[in-house]
Amino acid sequence: MAHYSPTARVVDVSHLIPPHDIRSGALTLWRSAPWLVPGVILAVVDPGVGTERRAVAVEVAAAGAVLVGPDNGLLLPAAVRLGGPSAAVELPPNLHAPGATFAGRDVFAPAAARAANGEPLAALGRPIDPATLAGQPVSGPQVEDGGRLRTEVLWVDRFGNAQLNATPEDVARLIGSVAEARTATAAHPVRVVRSYGGIGGDEVALVVDSYGLLAISCNRRSAAATVGVAPGDAVWLCHDRG
Amino acid sequence: MAHYSPTARVVDVSHLIPPHDIRSGALTLWRSAPWLVPGVILAVVDPGVGTERRAVAVEVAAAGAVLVGPDNGLLLPAAVRLGGPSAAVELPPNLHAPGATFAGRDVFAPAAARAANGEPLAALGRPIDPATLAGQPVSGPQVEDGGRLRTEVLWVDRFGNAQLNATPEDVARLIGSVAEARTATAAHPVRVVRSYGGIGGDEVALVVDSYGLLAISCNRRSAAATVGVAPGDAVWLCHDRG
Amino acid sequence: MAHYSPTARVVDVSHLIPPHDIRSGALTLWRSAPWLVPGVILAVVDPGVGTERRAVAVEVAAAGAVLVGPDNGLLLPAAVRLGGPSAAVELPPNLHAPGATFAGRDVFAPAAARAANGEPLAALGRPIDPATLAGQPVSGPQVEDGGRLRTEVLWVDRFGNAQLNATPEDVARLIGSVAEARTATAAHPVRVVRSYGGIGGDEVALVVDSYGLLAISCNRRSAAATVGVAPGDAVWLCHDRG
Repeated sequence: MAHYSPTARVVDVSHLIPPHDIRSGALTLWRSAPWLVPGVILAVVDPGVGTERRAVAVEVAAAGAVLVGPDNGLLLPAAVRLGGPSAAVELPPNLHAPGATFAGRDVFAPAAARAANGEPLAALGRPIDPATLAGQPVSGPQVEDGGRLRTEVLWVDRFGNAQLNATPEDVARLIGSVAEARTATAAHPVRVVRSYGGIGGDEVALVVDSYGLLAISCNRRSAAATVGVAPGDAVWLCHDRG
Repeated sequence: MAHYSPTARVVDVSHLIPPHDIRSGALTLWRSAPWLVPGVILAVVDPGVGTERRAVAVEVAAAGAVLVGPDNGLLLPAAVRLGGPSAAVELPPNLHAPGATFAGRDVFAPAAARAANGEPLAALGRPIDPATLAGQPVSGPQVEDGGRLRTEVLWVDRFGNAQLNATPEDVARLIGSVAEARTATAAHPVRVVRSYGGIGGDEVALVVDSYGLLAISCNRRSAAATVGVAPGDAVWLCHDRG
Repeated sequence: MAHYSPTARVVDVSHLIPPHDIRSGALTLWRSAPWLVPGVILAVVDPGVGTERRAVAVEVAAAGAVLVGPDNGLLLPAAVRLGGPSAAVELPPNLHAPGATFAGRDVFAPAAARAANGEPLAALGRPIDPATLAGQPVSGPQVEDGGRLRTEVLWVDRFGNAQLNATPEDVARLIGSVAEARTATAAHPVRVVRSYGGIGGDEVALVVDSYGLLAISCNRRSAAATVGVAPGDAVWLCHDRG
């Protein structure tokens, strides 16, 4: 990047995505994207590098953003959150690379640098239909029989907070209020609190986290370990107990 | 930071403080502070985020420094080491934040960026008395009965060196010289050496470390594991053996 | 660095070298060096800090590079790969440092910053003969009796790919083709593939990695664990099976 765009400011969002975990990378990007625009976003979780998966650059005109990376579902959730892809191109392979296993360095970084330098999207590759981009937007919570809200654990942060795909507004609109969180194995009485410090020593609570989402949290201990949930698990929010 | 102060140079001191460990964060900052000034220091270890703990910016005029972070003891040791707080303000909450759990992004980073841009401290918040800031300076070693010097392990680095809160000058002034280091469980003959490479294969030694402090060290193995000490433990330095 | 050379752009290659592991550091630098020049390269893995090992700056005129660090074998492989040392100086000690244990901060970083500022090598220290620099270039593969190629595992990356010290061109020139990879304990049929995604679920393969070297690889699991090899281990490549 320093070579291709010496004056660009590079911000490292994360180098800690588990190997091959496209979903984790896509959600990390989805959480961070609003704080990264306007700008160019380079993301690489690429187990299919060197295969037929496309290398792409995606423009979100509404946010002044260009996202560059593999077309494997990594970019789409963030692109949708930013306003939706307005245009996309497929990047050509780098015929001068020493191998075909590190598109991050050989294909994506040069394209991102060129975008950062102000080159138009069309100069980076062959136009493709944004509707053909791989992946799904992040899904919201669903009301199920009995008025309970089915949510999903999106992420467990290093403090053990289990982020759900639901906002306080979702709860208010869909089930009114929440008194209990049920996992596949247990039910926990919960109340919505403003801060970790407002949670009692033995309590499990819902906190409005820094992304505006509800998270299952404890005070100075891991809620994910306490409740026994991991990313991808379902959690049902209920407005009454039992 | 890049948004609020595009030309500021950001140096990452550490993202490896254990969760909720204010003492570890405060000592990391205390060790690093002399190499970070003049400048703006942003530090966040903030288990009480969203509670009544204050958000503050602290000026140390003697060092050309502004420290920004939670008023929970994290900043004070560094501020004292740099010359002592000359002024302080309480930062207002960010009413536009999506939640109350990430003051690092929503309150402290914008304030630090504004300080880096040259805004005066008084523009950042409401003046408070620096004497009311939370926390304690790092304490020095104490002479105890029998002429032994009670020190404390401040830090164990990734090589296993156990940094003590005592300098060679402290030893010379308070007990003259050191021949033995005693932990709660054992006594180890020690000599003060200049470099790790000067320590024998089975030896435990005291090295003057890169902060000018004495550290219990071994050659290419962990002294903390060998001697059995951890941060916060007492170590007594004695001028004779037995 | 920010103090001595405020406008220099600093790129962090790695802070993850295991303690005292000069070989790992030297190979990391050797792999990265072609992408870091022209420029100044600062490297520190320095178990002998404060002893008689020299502190050096090494110029590779062919690449527009200056390498700064301890003269313990860390720099030489990269310097040779870049074209070979054209000049070298011994850096003086820093008499104002608080201790003798952190030459990275007290000696090497200031010298690297001065080099980045454009100061000539001769201004940084006392000239020494580049032929006296410590260390060995990275050795290539060797043909052994029976037409098999003895290679060495240079590195296992975080995905478990085991990088060998041999290129496809080495194989073509020295043994023609490769059908089997033998470790000290087992033999594995292998073929050379272009991408990780082209490897079957149970297959062990050779991939041309991002440095142009052959690596023992599996698809979305650790090849090093599957085959049972670690850095420094020998692997024999054979053009027939059995």
